[in-house]
This record gives sequence, structure tokens and C-alpha cells, in this order.
Amino acid sequence: MKGRWVLGVDIGGTNLVVAAVPAAGGQPTAIRSEATHAERGPDGAVERIVKMANEVMEETLSAEGGQRSDFAGIGIGCPGPLNLEEGVIVTTPNLGWDGFPIRGRISDALEMPASLDNDATCATFGEWWLGAGKGVRSLVGVTLGTGIGGGYIERGRLMRGASGSAFEIGHTTINFEGRLCGCGNRGCLEAYTSGPNIAARAREGLKHGEASVLPRLVDGDLGAITAETVYDAVLQGDVFATDLMRETAELLGIGLANVVNLVNPQMIVLVGGVTRAGEYLFAPLLESVKRRAFPSAVEACRIVPGALPDTAGVVGAAGVFVIDRVA
Amino acid sequence: MKGRWVLGVDIGGTNLVVAAVPAAGGQPTAIRSEATHAERGPDGAVERIVKMANEVMEETLSAEGGQRSDFAGIGIGCPGPLNLEEGVIVTTPNLGWDGFPIRGRISDALEMPASLDNDATCATFGEWWLGAGKGVRSLVGVTLGTGIGGGYIERGRLMRGASGSAFEIGHTTINFEGRLCGCGNRGCLEAYTSGPNIAARAREGLKHGEASVLPRLVDGDLGAITAETVYDAVLQGDVFATDLMRETAELLGIGLANVVNLVNPQMIVLVGGVTRAGEYLFAPLLESVKRRAFPSAVEACRIVPGALPDTAGVVGAAGVFVIDRVA
Repeated sequence: MKGRWVLGVDIGGTNLVVAAVPAAGGQPTAIRSEATHAERGPDGAVERIVKMANEVMEETLSAEGGQRSDFAGIGIGCPGPLNLEEGVIVTTPNLGWDGFPIRGRISDALEMPASLDNDATCATFGEWWLGAGKGVRSLVGVTLGTGIGGGYIERGRLMRGASGSAFEIGHTTINFEGRLCGCGNRGCLEAYTSGPNIAARAREGLKHGEASVLPRLVDGDLGAITAETVYDAVLQGDVFATDLMRETAELLGIGLANVVNLVNPQMIVLVGGVTRAGEYLFAPLLESVKRRAFPSAVEACRIVPGALPDTAGVVGAAGVFVIDRVA
Repeated sequence: MKGRWVLGVDIGGTNLVVAAVPAAGGQPTAIRSEATHAERGPDGAVERIVKMANEVMEETLSAEGGQRSDFAGIGIGCPGPLNLEEGVIVTTPNLGWDGFPIRGRISDALEMPASLDNDATCATFGEWWLGAGKGVRSLVGVTLGTGIGGGYIERGRLMRGASGSAFEIGHTTINFEGRLCGCGNRGCLEAYTSGPNIAARAREGLKHGEASVLPRLVDGDLGAITAETVYDAVLQGDVFATDLMRETAELLGIGLANVVNLVNPQMIVLVGGVTRAGEYLFAPLLESVKRRAFPSAVEACRIVPGALPDTAGVVGAAGVFVIDRVA
């Protein structure tokens, strides 16, 4: 592969992030981020990504020297399911850009090669390349956010599965009689532990009359409660929010115990804002994994927060571009 | 590796099976099988395995010519968890031979090299080497019997996991509020779908007053009901047994949907006596997988019965010996 730099793009339901990453691995520079505005459609988003990418290249080259051809290409991370061969979004509940040929559009506009992969796969690869899972032989990444996603890397190889949709841990069943999930099933892990579902469970509890500071934190507008609000309430010592957080961690632990018993990895790295809850999350989560998974498999597996909370996705997207060229 | 033949041993809770398998792959010859009698302890079992192995070698050589040195070694498949490095059984609920150095004992007695692997891993490898999953790039095997086990082969490589206990699908949670499992947890797949649990669920239904031919089939001794009895009742058109079988298949489908969404394999092969139920099992099972897993992942995955219902384990044990020598 020619070129000292690679661009990374992380397309999220909330933000678009673009950065320059050294092709040999290293911290991203010239990070740009702005609101996605998914509802305005994919064409406008591509325009803004291209504009940000050009700015990132200019800033990088003016600081580091060199020319545009020093950029080997652009790696794109995007919510899925995706058609990786064609570079097309199949369906994205959080974006609504179904059938859009995102890879070709960005590649054409920037006149450089582009790669496309699942956002959770990219974040996992970022943590393996430069973060908490550096060099780990078998690494599972789990992204906690609007959705629950995942990725798996074995001996440096991304395990994408037969149709490119491996490690959709958010849609594994932990209670077949449980909560209705956005995907239409009952009892998916995501139906309990995604940000919006944490907020929904909080609202349900409050409607059942649970006492809490939460209504006050949102000036009585329960619809404004988010996972962050719940965490704020935990920090204020709110009993209801603390119980809810512990229960969420235990449920997440059940999903991870399934991964431990199936994959038996050396490490699970958790990526996303929820990991800021620290011990409020990790202590009950680890307890729950221990209770459910085989002792030898639990012992072999470290479960840790990611080391790149804001940049795992964009760094990993660039990294996936690099290994796709080398492979 | 020197030698045209390899011995395979499949140690089961019910039977010990020994056979000779061509090292280059091929149908087993001179198959010997006898009751395990686990309760008589591991030393007696090793003695009988060694006796059977000697008989298998004699029979094979007298039919095919050659000498004892034409046998390269012996591959052992055994319920786990196992310590693969040391060749020791860690715990086996169905055998009770905890801590027994099975690989060394058999190797010493036969004066030939031996390998040891999980019985479900061996059965999966057998189906990949010579059976329904021949040459499939990503193959999950699920063994349905006294327990529910599993194995995974990617590009011809056994995925054993960081501590050798990967693919313990029987102990993945499908309902965290569900049935108590032998392992102490609630709602494991095995707690619903193993042979003994199918029988237990039948007994529970009968105690609740469900009408069925089952009591008649066991002369009123409900304790004598097995998964086979339930299947016999299905064949007689029994409504209760048919519903129970369909529910079992649906629950198995939930566990397999989790595997489809996590691993996204090209094929899942089901091994074990229950697969004799044919469409009674497969039709509702596939329906359940389709309902729960991502359409693209379901489309990419064939779910089929094994082609070596009685010999996958013993053939695979020999096969694992071969690839362990070559790797």
C-alpha cells in the first residue's frame, strides 16, 4: 500500500467523525466532528464528509508536510447491516439510508480508494490496533450506545462471518419471553441495555411510582430522560437509578456470559459512553458473567473498558482500510 | 505424520466407541462399541478401551495387511471441560472422572501418541472431514444428547478458544428467568432441549394433567420416559408429545439464532439421536431461527442434520489427532 496516511470516517446516528490516521498505526490527527442530521438524507451527509475529509487532509499536510497522494485512501465505518462486497447500506434503523451505495459515493467524490465496514467492527479493530486490546489474540468488542453492536478479531483477522454480519450481539436473545425489541423479537440484549432502552426502563419504573430524582433532573419531562440522565442520578446517590444501573449491568453480563461460553475469548472490550459509569457498571457486570459462564472460560477472559472512548470507531475504520489492502 | 491408520475413541456417557480410520480420511472400519459403565471408574474404562483398540487394530490389519506401526496413534473424544494441554479431564458431570489424566493413561497403555479433545468438537470435526459439512468454510456443529455441546471450524481450523472451552452452546442463556439448569443457572439452552430435559418437561406436563399416550408407553412409570419415548408418541400422533417436540425445536431454534447472529456461519450441522425426528424437529426449528436471526445471516446459513449419526464422534476424534500432528 502506498501512502503514509489513511482517512477514517465514523458515521454514527448522532455524529459524523473524520480524522487522519498514520497508515502504520498511531493516534489520529486533525479530528473533525459534526452532527449527522440523518433525516436530511445520505447525499448531504456525503457532501459534508467530503468537505471534512478535505479539511482534515489540508490540516494534516500543512502540519506534517507532504502531498495529497500521501493519503492512501479512506476507511468508512457505518451502522449496518451492510453489503460489504458492494459497499452498500442494506438497512440502518438509526440512519434510514437503506440501499445507499455509500462506499462508491465517497470514493468517487474524493477520488481515492475506500473501504466500508460495520461501525462496531471498526471500533473493535481500533481497540485491537491501538487501544485496550492491542495485540490480544482473540478479542471481542462490544459497543454500547443507541444500539448494541460487536466485533471479533482472531489472530489479527476480522471475523466478519459468511454474510458480513457476525457479532450482532445486541440481537442475541437473553429472555425469549422478555421485552419487545426494535427488531421485532422478544428479549434481545439490546431491548434491555441500549441507551434508549435504559431510558425507557427508567420511565417505566417512574410510571409505576418509584421515587427518584430523575423527574427533577428533566424538569418533569420524562421523555427527556436518557442513559446519561440515569447515570447523573446514580452519581447523586439516587436509589432507583442505582438499582436500574446495576440491573442493566447484570443483564449485559448475561449477554457477555453467552459470548464467553461460545467464543471463549482472551478479552472483551466494552466501547461507548456507558463505560464512563466505571465500577457502577463493571462490578455487577463481572459478577453476572462469573455466575453464568464456565469458570475456566471466565478466568481466561479479561473484560475491560476501551482505551479510545471517542476515537475507536474512526481509528478502526482507517485501520480496516489498511488491513484490507494488505490482506 | 507416519502411518496409514489412526484409532479413534469416542467416550460417551452411555457407550465407548473405538474404530480405525484411514489417516487420509475415509470411513471407519472395525467399529467396536460397548457400555461405558462410568460408575465403575476411569481405570476400568481405560482397560476396556485398550482391549477394544487392540482388537480394532488386529481386525484392520488382518483385513488390509500391514503392521501395528501402520497406526500413527489414537485420538480421544471425551465430555469436558478438559485441560487440553495436560490431557486431563477437569469435570465431567456425566462420567464423574474429575481430574483423571485420560490421554496419558491411554497413550502409555497402547504405547502410541494420543490426542484429546472435547466430544462435541470431535463430532463437529468428523462432520467437516467426512460428513455433511465436508469442506464448509465456517461450520458450527451442535450435539444433541444427554447434554448440548458444540464446536466450530473456520477454514479447516478448530476454534477451541482461549481456554479450550469454546462453543459450550448448551450453557448459553435463552431465558434468564427460565428453567433451572444442571449447571446451577437459569434458562440455559440445555435446561430445555437436552434428552433428559425433554423427558422432564414431558413428565411436568403429564403431572399437570395433560392427556397423552406417554404413560401407557412406559406402563405408568413416568420416570422411564426418555426423549425417545416422546418421539415414539409423536409418531403415534399424540398431540401433547407433538406440541412438546415442536416447542423443543423452537427453543433450540432460539439458541441457534443466537449462534447465527453471533458467528454468522455457512452451516450448522446437528448431530445426535434427536435429529431422527426429521421434519418434526427441523421445520419448527428453522421457522424459529428465521423469526429471530438477521435475514441475511439466515440466508447465508444452511442448518442440516449430520451425515454420520453414529460415527461422527469417533471419526472426528481420529481426525483431530491427524490435524494436531500436521499443524
